[in-house]
Amino acid sequence: MLPKGNFPEKVFLNGTIYSSNDAHISVFDRGFLFGDGIYEVMVQLGNGIFYKKAHLDRLQENLDKINIPYDVSHLEAQINPLLDSYNLGDKTCLIYMQVTRGVAPRKHAYPKDVPATVMMYALPFSLPHINTKNMQVILQPDFRWHRCDIKSISLLGNIMTNEAAMTQNADEAVLVRDGIITEGSHTNIFFIKDEKVYTHPANEHILDGITRKIVLELCRDLEITVMEKAIPADKISSMDEAFLTGTTTQIASISKLGEHVFHTSGAIGPITLKLQEAFAKLKGLDSSTLIL
Amino acid sequence: MLPKGNFPEKVFLNGTIYSSNDAHISVFDRGFLFGDGIYEVMVQLGNGIFYKKAHLDRLQENLDKINIPYDVSHLEAQINPLLDSYNLGDKTCLIYMQVTRGVAPRKHAYPKDVPATVMMYALPFSLPHINTKNMQVILQPDFRWHRCDIKSISLLGNIMTNEAAMTQNADEAVLVRDGIITEGSHTNIFFIKDEKVYTHPANEHILDGITRKIVLELCRDLEITVMEKAIPADKISSMDEAFLTGTTTQIASISKLGEHVFHTSGAIGPITLKLQEAFAKLKGLDSSTLIL
Repeated sequence: MLPKGNFPEKVFLNGTIYSSNDAHISVFDRGFLFGDGIYEVMVQLGNGIFYKKAHLDRLQENLDKINIPYDVSHLEAQINPLLDSYNLGDKTCLIYMQVTRGVAPRKHAYPKDVPATVMMYALPFSLPHINTKNMQVILQPDFRWHRCDIKSISLLGNIMTNEAAMTQNADEAVLVRDGIITEGSHTNIFFIKDEKVYTHPANEHILDGITRKIVLELCRDLEITVMEKAIPADKISSMDEAFLTGTTTQIASISKLGEHVFHTSGAIGPITLKLQEAFAKLKGLDSSTLIL
Repeated sequence: MLPKGNFPEKVFLNGTIYSSNDAHISVFDRGFLFGDGIYEVMVQLGNGIFYKKAHLDRLQENLDKINIPYDVSHLEAQINPLLDSYNLGDKTCLIYMQVTRGVAPRKHAYPKDVPATVMMYALPFSLPHINTKNMQVILQPDFRWHRCDIKSISLLGNIMTNEAAMTQNADEAVLVRDGIITEGSHTNIFFIKDEKVYTHPANEHILDGITRKIVLELCRDLEITVMEKAIPADKISSMDEAFLTGTTTQIASISKLGEHVFHTSGAIGPITLKLQEAFAKLKGLDSSTLIL
């Protein structure tokens, strides 16, 4: 039996929909023994799954990066049956998907001819029209690996970092590697200076977020100059605005980052607000037209 | 049902001994969702578990490092009942232990008041008196995180590296970070030059192996000069000998590392051999006298 908590009602696991209490995997699953898997999170809105293709494509790309042979189209076909199985068919919800390398005797190298373990669940969830929260963010050293582009479940570095934020009553921890701001524990970060927008380039030191990509496109649509250029930690105080992005975070203004206060009394900077409003508009569009 | 393969007969899981086919955890276990756990491997010889206290102490220290509240003495008390349950009581075997932060709704920060998930199994296994294999080892970039001192199950970096070795028909991959040799994908590495022994210092870039520590002690006993000093990759060809260490590897001579050939025709260097022989003697001693 699961403990009390906000668990989903059902879980899709390897072709079958289970009550969450009964969704079990072998202790020999390589997800459990090695963190050997990839995950994805997306949100269903009233008019469909927001940037569904971008999320599913990223899941496939990440599985390919670590040579887990699984065709994500099989999982895609199971989304609606899962949602329908507990009346989430057209409801707003969060959809979590995870694919691991499957069950094998514990040995580091990849086993041959083992079917992947495929898990998915959905939780009732609704996004605010605009995320009006103004984030308190701490800085932490980025001690994670050098393949943060892989959306892997080997997340101990990320959770240790996020835990540091929670114990300091902050909303998020943003990471600094070699003096450079990379990203948050589960968000990307943007800065604004003299009406130009800056974010870390999509290399092996950050996860190339779907919302990050959407913001880059919105900047171009709105004719806001945007540069994929990292900001050194010692330049934070010279920035005008900063915000976090993520699938559930959307675009969230940062009021305080490390020791620097951007805004007091809940103010949100003009460019951040413009991007938040443009992002909110996207959510009203037919989801099938939203492609990155 | 488990697929075919060298699985143990039984598994200890959260207080109960199961047939391996029935040893299941929730998909909401943080070990499966986040790689949020610690593991340990030790070997039982004819006269007891080799350096049992050192292994169990390390498991406790690692759990403490990532704030998983679990007292390893509870697991220690289950070792004999598990071994006795399938006639491994006094047999040589490998013992694998894993403790994760337990089951909770998926959220990065640590859940409160959740019992740890505790898993252990034993596999019939015997160590050769001396590991006479002469290892073919490739060099790979060390892209892992900067807390390799934590014996975590978030091992994707290690398994990707080990897989690279296997696909190149090598025995192990040894890692290079910023031009410096750190360790293998699941071993430590030592070099010998002018009768002095060198190994990477036990900092956050390597796992401080029990066998590594034993070798340091053996060097002192044998009055061999030993220095915890890292060797740059571009100095490999000036070294006289090199060997790997690990709980199942013991002390294994390296015949080839990257492009450099140390030995042809199975030769083993004199200092490596001396340490192998001294290590073999330890295995003949009463295990309760072996403390690091």
